Amino acid sequence: MPTVTFLPSFRKTEVPKGSTILEAAQKAGFHMNVVCGGQGKCGKCSVMVRSGEIDFDREKYGDFYTDEEASQGFCLSCQTRINGDLRVLIPEGSLVQEQQILVDSPGVPLEINPAVWKYALTLSPPTLDDQSPDLTRLLWGIEKSGGPKEGSIYAPLEVIREIPKVLRESGWRITATVALVPGGYRMINVEKGDTTSHSYGAAVDLGTTTVVVYIRSLIDGSIVGTGSNYNRQISCGEDILSRVNYAKRGGLEKLQALAVESINAALTAASNSAGIDRDDVYEVVVAGNTIMTHILMGIDPAYMIEEPYVPVVRRYLTTAARRVGLVVGKNSGLFIFPAVSDFIGGDIIADILASGMAESNDISLLIDIGTNFEVVLGNRDWMFACAGAAGPALEGGEVLFGMRANPGAIEQVSLDLRTLKPSFRTIRNQRPRGLCGSGLIDLLAELLRSCIIDRTGRINTAIAHERIRQGRQVPEFVVAWKEETAIGKDIVITENDIKALIMSKASILAACQTLMNQAGIGREEIARIYFSGAFGNYINKDHAITIGLIPEIPVERVTTIGNGAIAGANIALLNRRKKRVIDEIARKIAYIELNADPTFMDEYTGSCFLPHTDLSLFPGVEKMLDQCRILREQS
Amino acid sequence: MPTVTFLPSFRKTEVPKGSTILEAAQKAGFHMNVVCGGQGKCGKCSVMVRSGEIDFDREKYGDFYTDEEASQGFCLSCQTRINGDLRVLIPEGSLVQEQQILVDSPGVPLEINPAVWKYALTLSPPTLDDQSPDLTRLLWGIEKSGGPKEGSIYAPLEVIREIPKVLRESGWRITATVALVPGGYRMINVEKGDTTSHSYGAAVDLGTTTVVVYIRSLIDGSIVGTGSNYNRQISCGEDILSRVNYAKRGGLEKLQALAVESINAALTAASNSAGIDRDDVYEVVVAGNTIMTHILMGIDPAYMIEEPYVPVVRRYLTTAARRVGLVVGKNSGLFIFPAVSDFIGGDIIADILASGMAESNDISLLIDIGTNFEVVLGNRDWMFACAGAAGPALEGGEVLFGMRANPGAIEQVSLDLRTLKPSFRTIRNQRPRGLCGSGLIDLLAELLRSCIIDRTGRINTAIAHERIRQGRQVPEFVVAWKEETAIGKDIVITENDIKALIMSKASILAACQTLMNQAGIGREEIARIYFSGAFGNYINKDHAITIGLIPEIPVERVTTIGNGAIAGANIALLNRRKKRVIDEIARKIAYIELNADPTFMDEYTGSCFLPHTDLSLFPGVEKMLDQCRILREQS
Repeated sequence: MPTVTFLPSFRKTEVPKGSTILEAAQKAGFHMNVVCGGQGKCGKCSVMVRSGEIDFDREKYGDFYTDEEASQGFCLSCQTRINGDLRVLIPEGSLVQEQQILVDSPGVPLEINPAVWKYALTLSPPTLDDQSPDLTRLLWGIEKSGGPKEGSIYAPLEVIREIPKVLRESGWRITATVALVPGGYRMINVEKGDTTSHSYGAAVDLGTTTVVVYIRSLIDGSIVGTGSNYNRQISCGEDILSRVNYAKRGGLEKLQALAVESINAALTAASNSAGIDRDDVYEVVVAGNTIMTHILMGIDPAYMIEEPYVPVVRRYLTTAARRVGLVVGKNSGLFIFPAVSDFIGGDIIADILASGMAESNDISLLIDIGTNFEVVLGNRDWMFACAGAAGPALEGGEVLFGMRANPGAIEQVSLDLRTLKPSFRTIRNQRPRGLCGSGLIDLLAELLRSCIIDRTGRINTAIAHERIRQGRQVPEFVVAWKEETAIGKDIVITENDIKALIMSKASILAACQTLMNQAGIGREEIARIYFSGAFGNYINKDHAITIGLIPEIPVERVTTIGNGAIAGANIALLNRRKKRVIDEIARKIAYIELNADPTFMDEYTGSCFLPHTDLSLFPGVEKMLDQCRILREQS
Repeated sequence: MPTVTFLPSFRKTEVPKGSTILEAAQKAGFHMNVVCGGQGKCGKCSVMVRSGEIDFDREKYGDFYTDEEASQGFCLSCQTRINGDLRVLIPEGSLVQEQQILVDSPGVPLEINPAVWKYALTLSPPTLDDQSPDLTRLLWGIEKSGGPKEGSIYAPLEVIREIPKVLRESGWRITATVALVPGGYRMINVEKGDTTSHSYGAAVDLGTTTVVVYIRSLIDGSIVGTGSNYNRQISCGEDILSRVNYAKRGGLEKLQALAVESINAALTAASNSAGIDRDDVYEVVVAGNTIMTHILMGIDPAYMIEEPYVPVVRRYLTTAARRVGLVVGKNSGLFIFPAVSDFIGGDIIADILASGMAESNDISLLIDIGTNFEVVLGNRDWMFACAGAAGPALEGGEVLFGMRANPGAIEQVSLDLRTLKPSFRTIRNQRPRGLCGSGLIDLLAELLRSCIIDRTGRINTAIAHERIRQGRQVPEFVVAWKEETAIGKDIVITENDIKALIMSKASILAACQTLMNQAGIGREEIARIYFSGAFGNYINKDHAITIGLIPEIPVERVTTIGNGAIAGANIALLNRRKKRVIDEIARKIAYIELNADPTFMDEYTGSCFLPHTDLSLFPGVEKMLDQCRILREQS
């Protein structure tokens, strides 16, 4: 078998001849950037082949590299087959990097009422006059300490086996941990001495891209540690569809293991930062989309991507955390948020819980833009939800210089209306490498305001300006000159990029409108719009209204709740009563299938303008654009 | 390492120098007869060393072998150390043999109301208009078929994972299996097609010596197969104390595995005899003594044999059968009978359930004589119980020619009052090899009736009879002449044997009297005496009263219930409501510690006579003995 040596680390691996470099890199443990799932479409997994024989179709993938790059050995690792021993350099940009991940919860006031309690007990040892069994003695001790009644606590075998030793070795001074699970109370741990001060739970957001973990004290609810991590499944495909396809090709077990590995890594980070023992984590609450939670639980997600698109399970799931491989306390429970459908998963239920909209009389609109988008409209009495694919443009995918929110990404842009000179801010203030989602929305709004593009997104090449030029195929606007960047190229946005962005935002606006049509309400009746997800957190809300990503309401009533999934998971972890609210939310939501809705296509067509064909829906934007046009005409 | 070759099979094994031949034999897979647990006391593990160097103290263990036997190489395998390569012959008698095991249930009329049901369902496949998840679809199907409500059934992860495949591959025609477990309903299986006719459960008696398994249809309650097996733990020690000591020396895991292996072997026998698939066994109910069930569940039994003698757990236990290693259906439940104390275990609760005494107004006395004895006195309102060690004499242990109820054991004996010639029946009508428990009781009663022994058990050597003679140390009575036997020796009963038997029976009678004292009732108030266990089944009831093993009541009111443990397990398996009765029995029983009871020693002293010092307690026996004496005096 050929040996592949990866530079600069000199890590080696052997793979069968004919394998791709991507496969070899993954085998060697590299987390490659595979936005398109290895289809040769995104170019993010580029490598430089330094020596050795390969098979790569330069003709077919010619668009990805300049002649100079080609001569340096650049190729797509996913499309390059190995014919013999190789030396391959993996550029930093082709590896999955630490991303700007939201780990803050929105600060919703939390009621502390967890499902796990500890009882420190000093028991009297047995005597000939008191021959009660160890378990009975222990359970009576719990009852006497104000805990659940002796007969109402189930003790699993694993715990019973520990009891005699712990009782005797501790001199009958022990701490028992009891959890309320569906079905009743369960004794999940017995340990020596008084450990009541060590009682923790973990809230987990299992996202398609990232995994976030919070470790909270189950005594006072305080955050004791946080950790986050890329979802390591990303090496099997960037988007969720490619993951399901990977599962269908027999990869479910591997995906399951990677999900667990990702959570465990984040848990390790969180517990290390907290300085706590992971064995003291007694409950894990996970919110994730339906496919992610199916995979985490080892349940086949295949039927969710084929007509008629049904999940295997929708209700909340509970099991022992260790049974799926999570490294926490031995008998700690795992609670998985329920889902509504294949597209409205536990992450959205968590968003709703975190926003509080399900407990309010006011009508709210919640929008979660991640790899896909989900929209929920409603209040405490009713709820409609829908979901769709906005395309990857808003996350920087399929945009020439689009990128994830990694260091060097342009995250804010404004244009001087007179000089058309962009000012921008990059993540970590590094020299720019590309544009991430929030930067793209800014840019789109600014291009519109400055009349560089019209409401259909076409670049006005009649404007004589060095930044407005004809690109390889279509007109483009130069955001940063080669000399300013970290990549040695002009960073531009092309007319094709702009069209992709408009199509993306149109899907979201059309989805909002469709739900409003279903509920028979207008934009004036919407008391609040919640943005959930990393994307929503960094977005300029004014610009989001300007381009018609969301319906126009007073901007001060647009709120970002940050990572609603992790926030919701935290709430459920700390307050067991919220698990019932979650269940009610999941049952209350009416799911609207956009493709089956007769008004959706019309709404979409209308939304493929900036902000919309019907400007009466965006009176504030209309006024603002008019003012800008006048300004531009004066300059 | 020396190699030991076992004859006649030529099975070989290697063990470190200094190991015992017993250890080598066990390593080679032989189930050796180790009545004393390898202490060099019982002589049942004898082997013949044909060649090779050994270390065996012939001086110390001289009593076990004649000079001829010693010259043939006979030695105690447990006390013989290996110094080099050996050839060893294991005589048939030193191996654990197929025993006469009770497998009949007493024929109590059974109510069929099991905890497991099957639902054959034809589901409508999902469509775009009906995107219910697979699990919901299935649960609704069960509800519509008259099963538990959709929301009340818990589905474990292992089952959920199977669902999508089974539903689709079966064309949506499946059978779901639902069990009622503590905490609610649980879906334990989903399979293709209509399998409702295959629904079975297993009742298990896990005895110290034997394991009995019944497989019953959960539809009509019929017995579809039975199997029995030696408890393979016997290779780690015959009596229960030596097993606990084995566990204390780090052998718990091995004992647990052997218990499971023994049950699995009996299950295999039972399912083979029934021609059924063990995967179709959906519940296993086990009755066993407290130490056996602790060991089966992997719970340390050590503290039950040390003051203050407490078990770890007394309540009933439930878990997944596969979790302890039982090979039945994947998610089948295991129900372990509760116990009262370390000495009154689930086997006795099962006895009580099978006798029906806990549901009657009449006062009954239940006696279970096995490796130890247990006595229960009471009715539906109250119950006292006690337990004790009767010594191994009643089971043929520590009696010179005592043996288990194996082929060749004399199980019935009568003496001609005039000629003193014994007539006997052996198990399987083979030439006699020794005396088993029922034969010994017969012999004791007959020796008393024929005035060969007096009421203290002393042999009247003044009687001039060839069968009454002085033995090596004490007088003895010849039951069978060398020429009649299969062992080439006279089979005798010695005065020491008789004393051991009297001490054993005295313990039991004293225990009965102690409970009667506690309850303040006399023998006239006892409506019924139940004998449970193999021993009780073969015993001559008249003789049991004659020797004062049990209180004197009209013999027709003495009933044998056979193997009460397996009978009780069967009842609980077939009728889930009886699990509540079991729980009530376990809570109702007041356990009397005999050693702590001030009257017990007096009762014991009085009982060390045949039948008792106080003949007014045995008026019928007194009259009969008077008549016999007259007859003997006439002859």
